[in-house]
Amino acid sequence: MPEALVLEERDRLALRNIALPDMLGPDDVRIAVHTVGICGSDVHYFKHGAIGPFVVREPMVLGHEASGTVSEVGRNVTNLKVGDRVCIEPGIPEAGSRTSRMGFYNVDPAVRFWATPPVHGCLTASVVHPAAYTYKLPENVSFAEGAMIEPLAVGIHACVKAQIKPGDICLVTGSGPIGIMTALSALASGASQVLITDISEAKLRIAGSYDRLIPIDLTQTRARDVVDALCGQDWGVDVTFEASGFESAYADALACTRPGGTLVLVGMPPHKVGFDIVAAQAKELSIETVFRYAHVYDRAIALIASGKIDLKPLISATYPFSDAIAAFERAAEGRPADVKIQITL
Amino acid sequence: MPEALVLEERDRLALRNIALPDMLGPDDVRIAVHTVGICGSDVHYFKHGAIGPFVVREPMVLGHEASGTVSEVGRNVTNLKVGDRVCIEPGIPEAGSRTSRMGFYNVDPAVRFWATPPVHGCLTASVVHPAAYTYKLPENVSFAEGAMIEPLAVGIHACVKAQIKPGDICLVTGSGPIGIMTALSALASGASQVLITDISEAKLRIAGSYDRLIPIDLTQTRARDVVDALCGQDWGVDVTFEASGFESAYADALACTRPGGTLVLVGMPPHKVGFDIVAAQAKELSIETVFRYAHVYDRAIALIASGKIDLKPLISATYPFSDAIAAFERAAEGRPADVKIQITL
Amino acid sequence: MPEALVLEERDRLALRNIALPDMLGPDDVRIAVHTVGICGSDVHYFKHGAIGPFVVREPMVLGHEASGTVSEVGRNVTNLKVGDRVCIEPGIPEAGSRTSRMGFYNVDPAVRFWATPPVHGCLTASVVHPAAYTYKLPENVSFAEGAMIEPLAVGIHACVKAQIKPGDICLVTGSGPIGIMTALSALASGASQVLITDISEAKLRIAGSYDRLIPIDLTQTRARDVVDALCGQDWGVDVTFEASGFESAYADALACTRPGGTLVLVGMPPHKVGFDIVAAQAKELSIETVFRYAHVYDRAIALIASGKIDLKPLISATYPFSDAIAAFERAAEGRPADVKIQITL
Amino acid sequence: MPEALVLEERDRLALRNIALPDMLGPDDVRIAVHTVGICGSDVHYFKHGAIGPFVVREPMVLGHEASGTVSEVGRNVTNLKVGDRVCIEPGIPEAGSRTSRMGFYNVDPAVRFWATPPVHGCLTASVVHPAAYTYKLPENVSFAEGAMIEPLAVGIHACVKAQIKPGDICLVTGSGPIGIMTALSALASGASQVLITDISEAKLRIAGSYDRLIPIDLTQTRARDVVDALCGQDWGVDVTFEASGFESAYADALACTRPGGTLVLVGMPPHKVGFDIVAAQAKELSIETVFRYAHVYDRAIALIASGKIDLKPLISATYPFSDAIAAFERAAEGRPADVKIQITL
Repeated sequence: MPEALVLEERDRLALRNIALPDMLGPDDVRIAVHTVGICGSDVHYFKHGAIGPFVVREPMVLGHEASGTVSEVGRNVTNLKVGDRVCIEPGIPEAGSRTSRMGFYNVDPAVRFWATPPVHGCLTASVVHPAAYTYKLPENVSFAEGAMIEPLAVGIHACVKAQIKPGDICLVTGSGPIGIMTALSALASGASQVLITDISEAKLRIAGSYDRLIPIDLTQTRARDVVDALCGQDWGVDVTFEASGFESAYADALACTRPGGTLVLVGMPPHKVGFDIVAAQAKELSIETVFRYAHVYDRAIALIASGKIDLKPLISATYPFSDAIAAFERAAEGRPADVKIQITL
Repeated sequence: MPEALVLEERDRLALRNIALPDMLGPDDVRIAVHTVGICGSDVHYFKHGAIGPFVVREPMVLGHEASGTVSEVGRNVTNLKVGDRVCIEPGIPEAGSRTSRMGFYNVDPAVRFWATPPVHGCLTASVVHPAAYTYKLPENVSFAEGAMIEPLAVGIHACVKAQIKPGDICLVTGSGPIGIMTALSALASGASQVLITDISEAKLRIAGSYDRLIPIDLTQTRARDVVDALCGQDWGVDVTFEASGFESAYADALACTRPGGTLVLVGMPPHKVGFDIVAAQAKELSIETVFRYAHVYDRAIALIASGKIDLKPLISATYPFSDAIAAFERAAEGRPADVKIQITL
Repeated sequence: MPEALVLEERDRLALRNIALPDMLGPDDVRIAVHTVGICGSDVHYFKHGAIGPFVVREPMVLGHEASGTVSEVGRNVTNLKVGDRVCIEPGIPEAGSRTSRMGFYNVDPAVRFWATPPVHGCLTASVVHPAAYTYKLPENVSFAEGAMIEPLAVGIHACVKAQIKPGDICLVTGSGPIGIMTALSALASGASQVLITDISEAKLRIAGSYDRLIPIDLTQTRARDVVDALCGQDWGVDVTFEASGFESAYADALACTRPGGTLVLVGMPPHKVGFDIVAAQAKELSIETVFRYAHVYDRAIALIASGKIDLKPLISATYPFSDAIAAFERAAEGRPADVKIQITL
Repeated sequence: MPEALVLEERDRLALRNIALPDMLGPDDVRIAVHTVGICGSDVHYFKHGAIGPFVVREPMVLGHEASGTVSEVGRNVTNLKVGDRVCIEPGIPEAGSRTSRMGFYNVDPAVRFWATPPVHGCLTASVVHPAAYTYKLPENVSFAEGAMIEPLAVGIHACVKAQIKPGDICLVTGSGPIGIMTALSALASGASQVLITDISEAKLRIAGSYDRLIPIDLTQTRARDVVDALCGQDWGVDVTFEASGFESAYADALACTRPGGTLVLVGMPPHKVGFDIVAAQAKELSIETVFRYAHVYDRAIALIASGKIDLKPLISATYPFSDAIAAFERAAEGRPADVKIQITL
């Protein structure tokens, strides 16, 4: 029984031993976990005990953004060997499902996703995972970066869906971790510039520290005014990524996107949103909705390895596993300047 | 000064002489109008004097669904000759605008559209129009059908955007004229079957008179129940066309479309719609919004000429021009079984 | 040891008992074969003993276009039950391969395809097949039609790739079985008319018996002359499907397709083709190549069931299994009016 | 009568006065030419007097890669003013042509293109051009860079067509100016790495001086061997751009591209190419052909201004206008290390 960070119930964490599935199947690898990032959803389960229909009814290990080292491989595994440094895609779909066979396994209703009740997460010394969803890290990609592939994958996937063209000007509404990673993904995907909004000066300062990322402080100016100056009053950005889930951001998105442009809905609003359909129609926008990611881990790793995306400035703090509860408490504070807090094992 | 059907002001129509632009430019044709269909927007201007920001402030000739015969051609015109039977695309964009040059002239903000204030419509003996937006009718397409190309173009354009694949099962929410024409377009575009909803038995009877169009009476059953039976509980239709603008239809659309499917927003709701974005994301739907049409008149004419779309059952009544006011009064009644009322000149 | 039609070696067929794999896995079904169509590739193996790198080195059962009745189901199977009338997709990819996971299993190098050495085909009383590649036939689709889904799937897949838009005018070069089925697929996929070429009067007569299929006899006229008349000298067809593999057809395809149009390469030429790349560039054609099909059996079945595609006129002759060798001998004659010869068991 | 670089006939250039069209239309601008790059086509006209069907029958001014300063604007012009530094798109389509209206004006058969007989080029002090095809340069883009937008546009357009996804690995066959600019475009469009081939060590040295551009010397190794090492033996690059026109490059392209990948044909071979269609089909490649460019000048300028593409290392030599003939003589030598030679006025 290994030690793990266990969410006993809402608002109560423990570092303790817990029985976890441990059997290595022929297509699996065992991974010694090295670094795990804390995601907003981990914090949400910690503070609220549930996300929508997913309710924590039994003690559950948290964490789903992980890197580590392969310690054992199943007998059919050919893509990995013991000692490989890896990062891990936390959702496992059913291979034979209709969505999986058609290529979009991310919306398979049967997907099992780490740290989503009743599935345990990865904040423990060792995990077993299918080799097909485990990816070797190049030498020049660190464990810390490897543990950020998961949130970056959300941004890359959004950009794949957006079909960004070279030279596009993009807008991202919201400068949270996903917003910034989506903006970096857009730059790496061909955008020449990316506008990014928020109301937090601290968040905008981090976003604005990147070349070609143009922060817009919504407490000081309207997004559309910046777009007017950059794109002209009768035009707009080519692609907008809504990455906040705030109702007002949808209006900004509609106002700022050019005729014939694309709007990608990344943020997950807690309620129905009052959406101005006629405003979208008047510009004949294409709207893509995205859910997690599929087939993009290789892409995300390649872009980090090539130096086109640099995530290191987004690592705000790193805690040893023994301080994992303190790490979660800090994450729960929601300090504006904290983009990503990681735990090392 | 020719005679025309003039909307003097809200609720007051007159058949009277009125001065209209009459100069034939080098790229224009003059057309003796033969048949004009009444559109919901014509009726809306008649009864309300405005649609959104478009307010009737001066007397305005109504009508924008027209066919006729070319009576004179400008000196540069090569695609048409005197005597050609034609139908007319009522919106004229600016040729040099950015949207026009990029191929989506329908969202050109400078477009001039018949019977949209302050632009006069075509319910008069003769009109002048750019030859580039005037289309020759094949011999086997009647004037009555020619005057229905305009609303059909909305449906064809929606199907172009939807990228229907052969054998797709589609759903159309709403059995108004646009709903039915979208459903017929979907069948002609490769759908194997199209479900179509409404709460009016009369409308559903007309829709259901077509092969492969499956009416769903929402007063008797839920759309999702029919989809369950046809597509399975964990799947759905490939493409949904929302063609009603009713709030409840958006929920049906989200519930009935399959993972990875497409939702096309054709209907124009009068207010913002409470839209369940997370429900769309959970299936990663692509959402296309459409505004009128571009580059589809040739397509619509070809499909009628080939017999793949038969609009004749949708012509509910035909009035002579001298009874045009009576025609509008009937159209304003909104009889459920009236799909399209036409006026002949 | 069941009886089967065995290709002993080039040019030598036998109806005899042969040991065949017979074990029913948990995801498999056993199918009592009812009808099997003879494909050009079956005939090619019969007369030449090989197709490219695939050489018949051991006796091999022929046949891969099959329908039948489920006689037993594996313990995991939920989509089928004993007694279901089905048709069978003859290629089985590796589920975990990269191509399968990305959604295009048809180009999986590890695919096992019936009657492709060293894999046996289906001309025998009973076969075992994965349920995932076995499709239930609706009541109004006969076994004879069910056994034609396989070649039809080639045409449907080509049309999916072509992204036909409603009202497109298409051209198919070659009126063999695949050419005609591609043409029918194009009509069902939104084309308003399809031109189809050949040099055989008999083949063109069959093609021309369908509405909206316009035969072009290349011994009498050039394809481009017909296109000139239909589309204008400076334009062309929207989509061309090359379905003959003849060198001259590629020149016709380039000459007849409109600027910005699509060319789909279906036919498999026996040698490299002298291809005029600059001619394709001058029109900026998109060229899709296709290999068999993926994810289209459902589509093909739906289009037959809905009556949008009628394959019955293409069944030229039906032989009992006892006369299977005679059926192959006739197929090998290559009579121009023979589109599809079937064998019933 | 201004002075210009005139190709009198094959092999004979003169710097002399010549009568040129000079009337400023209402939608035109007059531009004082600053820098003109020499393109391979200029050299081809110089040395051969013709390119395919385009034969120099009258003295013709050369040059079509130009930047300069607006000196006068027509009365309808709103996007530019006197003093604006600009670059110029050298092909002017007919605005009302079918291809222009559909958005792909580059394949308009009526296009008039600088320095393509009988249309004069821009190697003269001042030219008149439509404002719609003249683009303002940002302050941080030099005239020298502005005069390279034209060849860069070819690469950007090829990448737009390729629909590169973030993280793609690409291959470019041929390290000429267009090959290198296509490779840089691919990196700017989302590629993580681009392999680029040639047989010239000098050209490969220049290509390889860019980060993430991996040169392959075909005199030392096969392209497929490098792909094997990078992508695995059963996979390949996501997108290949053929940019040489050499017959052997097409075989490399087919061998190196992954199943389901894309091949973009940029190079224009002088003759038909023996093309292995079955090899393309076995991987179900999509093949895009490209011709010049459309709607990409803005994109190219934005990517240079943002620093994502640096063309400065590609400027091999700059000559004053008085030495323009010497510049052409050097260009005609075809020195391997000469990527782009420019002339300043």
